[in-house]
Amino acid sequence: MAELLVVGSVALDTVETPFGNAQEVLGGSATFFSYSASFFTPVRLVATVGQDFPEPHVKLLRDRGVDVGGLHVASGRTFRWTGAYGYDLNEAKTLDTQLNVFADFRPALDDTQSRTPYLFLANIDPELQLDVLRQMRTRPRLVALDTMNFWIKGKREPLLRVLREVDVVTINDGEARQLAEEPNLVKAARKIAALGPRTVVVKRGEYGALLLDDGGFFVVPAYPLEAIFDPTGAGDTFAGGFMGYLAFRDQTDAATVRRAMVYGSVMASFTVEDFSLNRLTRLDAREIDQRYAEFEVLMRLERG
Amino acid sequence: MAELLVVGSVALDTVETPFGNAQEVLGGSATFFSYSASFFTPVRLVATVGQDFPEPHVKLLRDRGVDVGGLHVASGRTFRWTGAYGYDLNEAKTLDTQLNVFADFRPALDDTQSRTPYLFLANIDPELQLDVLRQMRTRPRLVALDTMNFWIKGKREPLLRVLREVDVVTINDGEARQLAEEPNLVKAARKIAALGPRTVVVKRGEYGALLLDDGGFFVVPAYPLEAIFDPTGAGDTFAGGFMGYLAFRDQTDAATVRRAMVYGSVMASFTVEDFSLNRLTRLDAREIDQRYAEFEVLMRLERG
Repeated sequence: MAELLVVGSVALDTVETPFGNAQEVLGGSATFFSYSASFFTPVRLVATVGQDFPEPHVKLLRDRGVDVGGLHVASGRTFRWTGAYGYDLNEAKTLDTQLNVFADFRPALDDTQSRTPYLFLANIDPELQLDVLRQMRTRPRLVALDTMNFWIKGKREPLLRVLREVDVVTINDGEARQLAEEPNLVKAARKIAALGPRTVVVKRGEYGALLLDDGGFFVVPAYPLEAIFDPTGAGDTFAGGFMGYLAFRDQTDAATVRRAMVYGSVMASFTVEDFSLNRLTRLDAREIDQRYAEFEVLMRLERG
Repeated sequence: MAELLVVGSVALDTVETPFGNAQEVLGGSATFFSYSASFFTPVRLVATVGQDFPEPHVKLLRDRGVDVGGLHVASGRTFRWTGAYGYDLNEAKTLDTQLNVFADFRPALDDTQSRTPYLFLANIDPELQLDVLRQMRTRPRLVALDTMNFWIKGKREPLLRVLREVDVVTINDGEARQLAEEPNLVKAARKIAALGPRTVVVKRGEYGALLLDDGGFFVVPAYPLEAIFDPTGAGDTFAGGFMGYLAFRDQTDAATVRRAMVYGSVMASFTVEDFSLNRLTRLDAREIDQRYAEFEVLMRLERG
């Protein structure tokens, strides 16, 4: 079992879906990631919040064993995001973004953090991602990075620079096409791999996830849910399960990476069943094992 | 090995995709189905064409061993369909449909045809599908049916009647939602199963296919193709591989049905690589085995 460091955002989300709405609930990439990964391995979180950030949210993370020593409280208000989903639930429409203290986020790692063997650079400015990577005193055994259309469009050069130095990239299908400038997803994944990361994980929402690595392509379906309540955080929860399992096993061979893909999908399937981290806070290890076993059945092909 | 009967359309297609176009090429649900299934088991085809139908097309089917004794030549012109695809290739836009002799298609089975142990009712008027079923002198071991939005909307009652009597339904995802009047695909599949068919196969285009049967859900990804040329016939080719394999094995247990899903996906992945049946006419058994093995790799999850 090895430690896992995540650098990203902690936010207060206001979300509207066809099934209800939630006001100023706990969100952010580093939040979903660290909470999800904490079911597998010890996690250290580096992020910033404002003075208005509710203490119970910090307690929630701490109670799951997340090391919140790197959660900096800055003077000002916490990052806020407001989004809405239509019936297809595939893409959030951002209604409002207030960066607040997140605008001045300059992650500074302490000695312990800078020697963490597994690192996840959540979806933040690629210049900050590169800066975090530079602060690592020992090269992590595995570095993964997530990004989005905003950085692909606005910070392409720094993004390409940090991509050259990471092992894994997790990215949405539309964003993969945008980054590679290639409409065919298979070609796009290969082009992204040629940019540096030896492992490309394409998140496809209700269609699951696609992996490209030395072992070739691997596809994990999404869990067949009868009700998807709120997809916010699904991608970061996926990444948390994925990286959490790899750090727990402290192995990154092809077979372990495939199992990590399934654990990522398992965790994401729980997150979307309720708003915010609500479903995850009611989750136990037995349910994770059970759903993993259901994924095995969903994918099982016996030889004839 | 058991025989397989298909009743459906034989057509001349004019297709435009972003990658080229084809004029009056061989098409039709029964054509793609029978050609695909012929790689696995003996196939009998029942359909109608006009006097203008090119003899080389008949020869193509006969050369693959398809029994074309049930291909009726009626006075008039062959069924013609014209369609176009945009870059996403997910849905054809129908530009023109000329039913011609297909408008008066009244399938009449001879004694041998009516005792075929495996039956596929391709996408035709559900009243005709029911009529074919009534003509079967011995109840087939397995009856599968395909349908589309046109019949779901215009002939709902006859469709529900025939659905009660079939074992398998193959249907697109959008049409599954429409038939079940349910936006969630998982719920929709369960609702369709409750209408009669114990096995529901949902075709999801570039995302593969979903199976619901006694063994629960099973998901097959689409083969990761670098270039999809023309998706016309992919669904019927899938059904041909699926039913062809089941008839070949003459088994319909859950494990065999799952392998049949993969063979269906294998065959569909070849069809979309070129216009019409062009890729299938260049296909051999070794390539089918090889791509099946690639699907196994694509889906393989080893225990940890």
